[in-house]
Amino acid sequence: MTPGERELRRARAYLNRVAEPPAPALSELVTEVGPVRAARLVGAGPLPARVAAETSARRAEDRAEADLSAIAALRGRLVVPEDAEWPAEAFACFTTPVAQADQRWRAPLALWVRGAGRLDELGERMVAMVGARAATGYGQRVATEFGYELAQDGIVVVSGAAFGIDAAAHRGALAAEGRTVAVQACGLDRAYPAAHQGLLDRIAQSGAVLSEYPPGVRPARYRFLVRNRLIAAFAAGTVVIEAGVRSGARRTASAAAALGRVVMAVPGPVSSALSVGCHLLVREEQAVLVTRAAEVVEAVGRIGADLAPGLSAPRQHTDGLSPELLAVYEALPARAPRHSEQLMRDSGVPLHRVRSALPLLELRGLVGCGVSGWHRVRPDAGRGGA
Amino acid sequence: MTPGERELRRARAYLNRVAEPPAPALSELVTEVGPVRAARLVGAGPLPARVAAETSARRAEDRAEADLSAIAALRGRLVVPEDAEWPAEAFACFTTPVAQADQRWRAPLALWVRGAGRLDELGERMVAMVGARAATGYGQRVATEFGYELAQDGIVVVSGAAFGIDAAAHRGALAAEGRTVAVQACGLDRAYPAAHQGLLDRIAQSGAVLSEYPPGVRPARYRFLVRNRLIAAFAAGTVVIEAGVRSGARRTASAAAALGRVVMAVPGPVSSALSVGCHLLVREEQAVLVTRAAEVVEAVGRIGADLAPGLSAPRQHTDGLSPELLAVYEALPARAPRHSEQLMRDSGVPLHRVRSALPLLELRGLVGCGVSGWHRVRPDAGRGGA
Repeated sequence: MTPGERELRRARAYLNRVAEPPAPALSELVTEVGPVRAARLVGAGPLPARVAAETSARRAEDRAEADLSAIAALRGRLVVPEDAEWPAEAFACFTTPVAQADQRWRAPLALWVRGAGRLDELGERMVAMVGARAATGYGQRVATEFGYELAQDGIVVVSGAAFGIDAAAHRGALAAEGRTVAVQACGLDRAYPAAHQGLLDRIAQSGAVLSEYPPGVRPARYRFLVRNRLIAAFAAGTVVIEAGVRSGARRTASAAAALGRVVMAVPGPVSSALSVGCHLLVREEQAVLVTRAAEVVEAVGRIGADLAPGLSAPRQHTDGLSPELLAVYEALPARAPRHSEQLMRDSGVPLHRVRSALPLLELRGLVGCGVSGWHRVRPDAGRGGA
Repeated sequence: MTPGERELRRARAYLNRVAEPPAPALSELVTEVGPVRAARLVGAGPLPARVAAETSARRAEDRAEADLSAIAALRGRLVVPEDAEWPAEAFACFTTPVAQADQRWRAPLALWVRGAGRLDELGERMVAMVGARAATGYGQRVATEFGYELAQDGIVVVSGAAFGIDAAAHRGALAAEGRTVAVQACGLDRAYPAAHQGLLDRIAQSGAVLSEYPPGVRPARYRFLVRNRLIAAFAAGTVVIEAGVRSGARRTASAAAALGRVVMAVPGPVSSALSVGCHLLVREEQAVLVTRAAEVVEAVGRIGADLAPGLSAPRQHTDGLSPELLAVYEALPARAPRHSEQLMRDSGVPLHRVRSALPLLELRGLVGCGVSGWHRVRPDAGRGGA
């Protein structure tokens, strides 16, 4: 590691602790001036009021070296956006206009990671499974089965390692010798819940246990909500297995929708209080109803299938687009911008699907986003003569 | 009864038996020349080839008097379209372009009825509940509960009196002292299934047991499919409680959709083979997911609420339209016709909702249908100076 790299890593470690995530103003500062300069400004310099508000409580305390030593002692590592391993593709969802419009949806400044899996590789085909801690036997059976079958299909299951649905999903994936990722809401020096220390160790053997929070940080209710956005962001789709009316799982589903991800919900008996949240998601058209792992694969696979040919060798610029993506693309006039709502009306595609389609079209270079909404990108712009 | 009325009733009784329903060519002939002349033509005259094909097997046999005596002996009656009791409003669904395009969706030529309820009164606020005969305990509990709660809300439950879901729905309604309607696929001189003779008698006490088939006709597989369209047509909405992948209940749901009715499905455990059909209906966007009777009332009540003010005293011609009806109406240009698919794209309303919206708009006199699709009707056309 060069001294420059070491300084950058130290800066990220310092910034990652100095503000409670998500820290929109600090993120903006880091984007503008880079992590090293941002760390210097936060530590000593004059700061814009918004950044000062986010960082004033902890700016005097630099525990970067201690944190880096602590993660090394756990045989873990700090992964920063400047690393090849950084899941840049997954986190592109934080840069869409919809995500940018809400200060809750900000990418992490760094990630503390324990495990054999490289984040960028794990993240290629990932599905999140979330649900109630006090799950029923039915919910846990479904979660285990889905986890098992998704893992058999080569999909990496991401969840939160909590009791109930989370643990069942991880265990299902492990039973199929698949890789799985647990996102924690505390420092990696502790297991949460403590009873899942063994489960977390097994997850780390082939997959990853990760957290936005530096070693020593304790879990807290609001950190779970903040953590949930990472679960949603990592995965192409989020499956809610069981959820009450007001539940963390439904919030994760909202995060997934805001980040343009496919949201799925598993139905259950109408007499079960823990299926009410799932049924609501379907009734409110926030989630697709899924009953089998194959339906999850189909929903997530479609996205992958759409993307893969487009990114490699497109023959015509709209080749390989699904009918839905094509409908959204064609609803955009050649020379005028449109907002999602207008595109919904013109394309007949539901709003949440329009919102997931646009970032996919952007990844293919077909559309872009400006101050007055989404617009078409000319097919050959920036592609040279080929 | 005048001699003319008697002759008309005899003609309908004859025609109702002479062809196996639905008889699209015969229906057309009756519409063109009236039942009395149609009966004479079928009995003796030259016939268009299509009508001859439908009637040749039975035209020589006139059992009208015997059938009318048989229904009288059962303390029942023949109800014909010329009667005030005829459920003309419900059966308007057979006259939409979508229904007319498919020969399966034809109104019956007459109905054999047993029971205290007048068909036109029963039909004002009706919900159909259908599902598997070999229902699970879960399905039967849900059907009974929905039947009970809908009846308490003054809604008439219509079903087929079969084992399983049908019987549970009727029983639930009866338990709440509500009125319920059973549509049979055989002559009313027999109970089908025979074990439900007592149930059918109870249904007839306050509601109605009815059939398109004259006394003596035996139930047959294809008659159940034909019968199902009547269940769908009577009700403003059809709820599928439990259904396998290929099931009569799903066919009834298709009929309901084709007839512009709200289709609803109740979810269940993903591990239950009898919930697969319900989940498919939701996944394929053919049905709205419902988990409580109140959600059924909401879905059906909205339609009633939309209609009621419109039919009585409209102040502005689009007053009282729901946002969705308004969206469909406004997607129609002032002077050009449109097909449902175009209206779907322009309004952003899903196709099956567009198809249920158009007949409602037609009932309000706002739209009409011609050979090139749906068109706006000028607000004051045919309304006089007021």
